[in-house]
Amino acid sequence: MRNGLLLVVSGPAGSGKGTVLSELLGKSSDFCYSVSATTRAPRPGEQDGVNYFFLTRAEFEKRIAERRMLEYTEYVGNYYGTPRDYVDAALADGKNVILEIEVDGAAQVKRLFPSAVLVFLCPPDLETLERRLRGRNTETEEVIARRLQKAKEEIMHATEYDYIVVNEEGGAARAAEELLAVAQAERLRAGRCAEERIRSFLGA
Amino acid sequence: MRNGLLLVVSGPAGSGKGTVLSELLGKSSDFCYSVSATTRAPRPGEQDGVNYFFLTRAEFEKRIAERRMLEYTEYVGNYYGTPRDYVDAALADGKNVILEIEVDGAAQVKRLFPSAVLVFLCPPDLETLERRLRGRNTETEEVIARRLQKAKEEIMHATEYDYIVVNEEGGAARAAEELLAVAQAERLRAGRCAEERIRSFLGA
Repeated sequence: MRNGLLLVVSGPAGSGKGTVLSELLGKSSDFCYSVSATTRAPRPGEQDGVNYFFLTRAEFEKRIAERRMLEYTEYVGNYYGTPRDYVDAALADGKNVILEIEVDGAAQVKRLFPSAVLVFLCPPDLETLERRLRGRNTETEEVIARRLQKAKEEIMHATEYDYIVVNEEGGAARAAEELLAVAQAERLRAGRCAEERIRSFLGA
Repeated sequence: MRNGLLLVVSGPAGSGKGTVLSELLGKSSDFCYSVSATTRAPRPGEQDGVNYFFLTRAEFEKRIAERRMLEYTEYVGNYYGTPRDYVDAALADGKNVILEIEVDGAAQVKRLFPSAVLVFLCPPDLETLERRLRGRNTETEEVIARRLQKAKEEIMHATEYDYIVVNEEGGAARAAEELLAVAQAERLRAGRCAEERIRSFLGA
């Protein structure tokens, strides 16, 4: 069986990543989410290996040293990261693994995993983003201003990604289709499949 | 309007290029064929600008010198080639232009037109290719043997292409869909659209 693709998806808060990725997972069973690891304690109902892999601090740091974390960050005293073992197993199983992470993490992943496909998901413009953030009715003016500022900084990193998908207003289904086309095309890239194709063709 | 893509499609005789490209043109009006130029005389019914651009030898050579031929070859005393002017105009019109050419020509195009997307179309294996060539009932044993030998040499160049699409037995519709996915994904590549996306996002 052919290996799946590691698809890294980043985008500003309000870009609609959650909606687009739900659409994608609904359209195709070839994709799965990566399960993250953390050192924080499980909350009631959370299951190890489903919501997170719950690791001790010592175990997490051992895996960082062994380069078994594709990316990680520390937040309020706890580690959060992407365990390479899980990703490798899902890819070997032929699944396309989706990693939803921030801009810094995406660059880390590309270094450790050069065949990863990086997709930047963005709203069409700042006005749309602001409308979406206000529509949630949960953020203060200060938070909205901070998010808009952060989005302006993040979009400048779009050039470091392989693909840019725009999530238009009401366009989550279309954006999910574009992600599907990216995955389909990437599996046809000569760099990924030439050797196997030539071997099959020659019957060698 | 955004520029279209220049899609160069190569593949051994019997790979089914004609069938797959007809399927593609039937599925989407975003694609058009490039019209070639030649110095040979028009045959009855052939129209200038439709079947070929009919040029004098002097005009053809002038265009080569001006780098206005994306690729060309000489065959039985006549030139055949791809005029850059036509391709540029169709791309500016937002069309994806398809160039069906041989392996040597594809390399020439990539040099003069680095943003071209090179797709190698191949049959799944030699047995299938041989069956297709025999199925035509028009080729001698010698021609079949020569074509199979040439296909073995051509497939080794697949590594120089961007994508490899396999045309399985009865799979022309699927191969055409894969070409569509390639074109859709290529238009989302950050290298092609990042600048425009960032400008639109910032409203600059």
